[in-house]
Amino acid sequence: MSTTHALLADLERNELVERLPDRTFRLGVRLWELASRTPGVLGLRELALPHLVDLHAEVGQHVQLGVLNGGDAVFLERLSSRDAVVNVTVVGGRLPAHASAVGLVLVAFADTAVQDAVLAGPLERFTDRTIVDPAALRRTLHEVRTTGFALGNGYVHADARGLAVPITGAAGEVVAALGVVVPNDDAPWEPLRERLRRTADAIAVDLRRASLPQSDPEASPGGRYRALVHSSDESMAYLAKTRPTPRARG
Amino acid sequence: MSTTHALLADLERNELVERLPDRTFRLGVRLWELASRTPGVLGLRELALPHLVDLHAEVGQHVQLGVLNGGDAVFLERLSSRDAVVNVTVVGGRLPAHASAVGLVLVAFADTAVQDAVLAGPLERFTDRTIVDPAALRRTLHEVRTTGFALGNGYVHADARGLAVPITGAAGEVVAALGVVVPNDDAPWEPLRERLRRTADAIAVDLRRASLPQSDPEASPGGRYRALVHSSDESMAYLAKTRPTPRARG
Repeated sequence: MSTTHALLADLERNELVERLPDRTFRLGVRLWELASRTPGVLGLRELALPHLVDLHAEVGQHVQLGVLNGGDAVFLERLSSRDAVVNVTVVGGRLPAHASAVGLVLVAFADTAVQDAVLAGPLERFTDRTIVDPAALRRTLHEVRTTGFALGNGYVHADARGLAVPITGAAGEVVAALGVVVPNDDAPWEPLRERLRRTADAIAVDLRRASLPQSDPEASPGGRYRALVHSSDESMAYLAKTRPTPRARG
Repeated sequence: MSTTHALLADLERNELVERLPDRTFRLGVRLWELASRTPGVLGLRELALPHLVDLHAEVGQHVQLGVLNGGDAVFLERLSSRDAVVNVTVVGGRLPAHASAVGLVLVAFADTAVQDAVLAGPLERFTDRTIVDPAALRRTLHEVRTTGFALGNGYVHADARGLAVPITGAAGEVVAALGVVVPNDDAPWEPLRERLRRTADAIAVDLRRASLPQSDPEASPGGRYRALVHSSDESMAYLAKTRPTPRARG
């Protein structure tokens, strides 16, 4: 898109990105700083991180957190191990929703327009297991929505199995999906599904506590910082008390 | 700066940030995606993360990773615990270098021009322990450079102690600092310093392996993805083999 190219030129002129010799772009630390200090997906990432760490300590392999964007799953965070199975997702990268367990969950709980757009394709084939038939995909999305769970055996790579469950926000809406990528073998996956659900529930509790009015006894401390920062209770109380509302620094 | 305001207007027009009712900015997931896929600080964050997780599992409290920008320490990542001591740093936030253990390490190993700029002030006072005298700060920086270690007892908040050590890149240059923030009490800090050094050394080994030519037997897999992505060995080998060089998507 030419708007993106124009934007990148602007960013470069303002020294917020650097253009490298091979034409890739390097993020200027100034832009990253701005991004990290604004509320939204990065606040969700920070809130979820300790839960992802606990899950990863038990499960090993790949633990990942994704949100929906333009019909794709975009991965906000991933914890891996050196000896984990092959996994094509990268932090900040995206996968077509139909091919990824995280994506199937996100689309299954999205509104009808999003589902129709994904079903309208194109449905890229990665392996002979990838669901590329719209009718089969519609049935799968219905099942994922009913069971609150997606299982992808070899959809992206024959050796990898993805499992994912929804993470609900304060109003009960699905805001993200939590997934693991493990070897596509004979091991039973039901215990993993239950472990994923426990972690997703724990994240949902934290999201709810962060959205309650600060006067609510169950509310987490931090005031308006709660969507942006997740640190110790003492730190959050201190930030809320002493710092002005976070703004992009001009 | 008006350039930043103009840039934010551009970003908003391109729907890469959203302006919220209270005039804060919310990062569009599209911009975050772009940022996360470009090499630089986020690759360092991802490479360091498993080491930060291990350190945090042992030390608890706050574990943080910072880089130098404009004479300040900018924090790329932080792991905390709900019951940890008060800590004002936020992910994506910055602290004046003279007041932060991470910042003292970064400036102590920076070139003379950076040191002179920091010494020229202003040196903001946070507590009665903050070093605000340029001569005292110069002595401290010299000591930090000699010992490879910074200790800040109550520099930012009376209750908090910061410790930090340098992380060296492939050419032996200091690329980041690793720190912890713990209670400012009578506990001996020497074991923490040694634990920090072991973690910083482990990160430095990974940085070096990621910079070796792919043909070197000690090189980590992943080709040109190694500055950008850190996943399992199989995943990195797969990315290097099958994907084109990562670019900002237009």
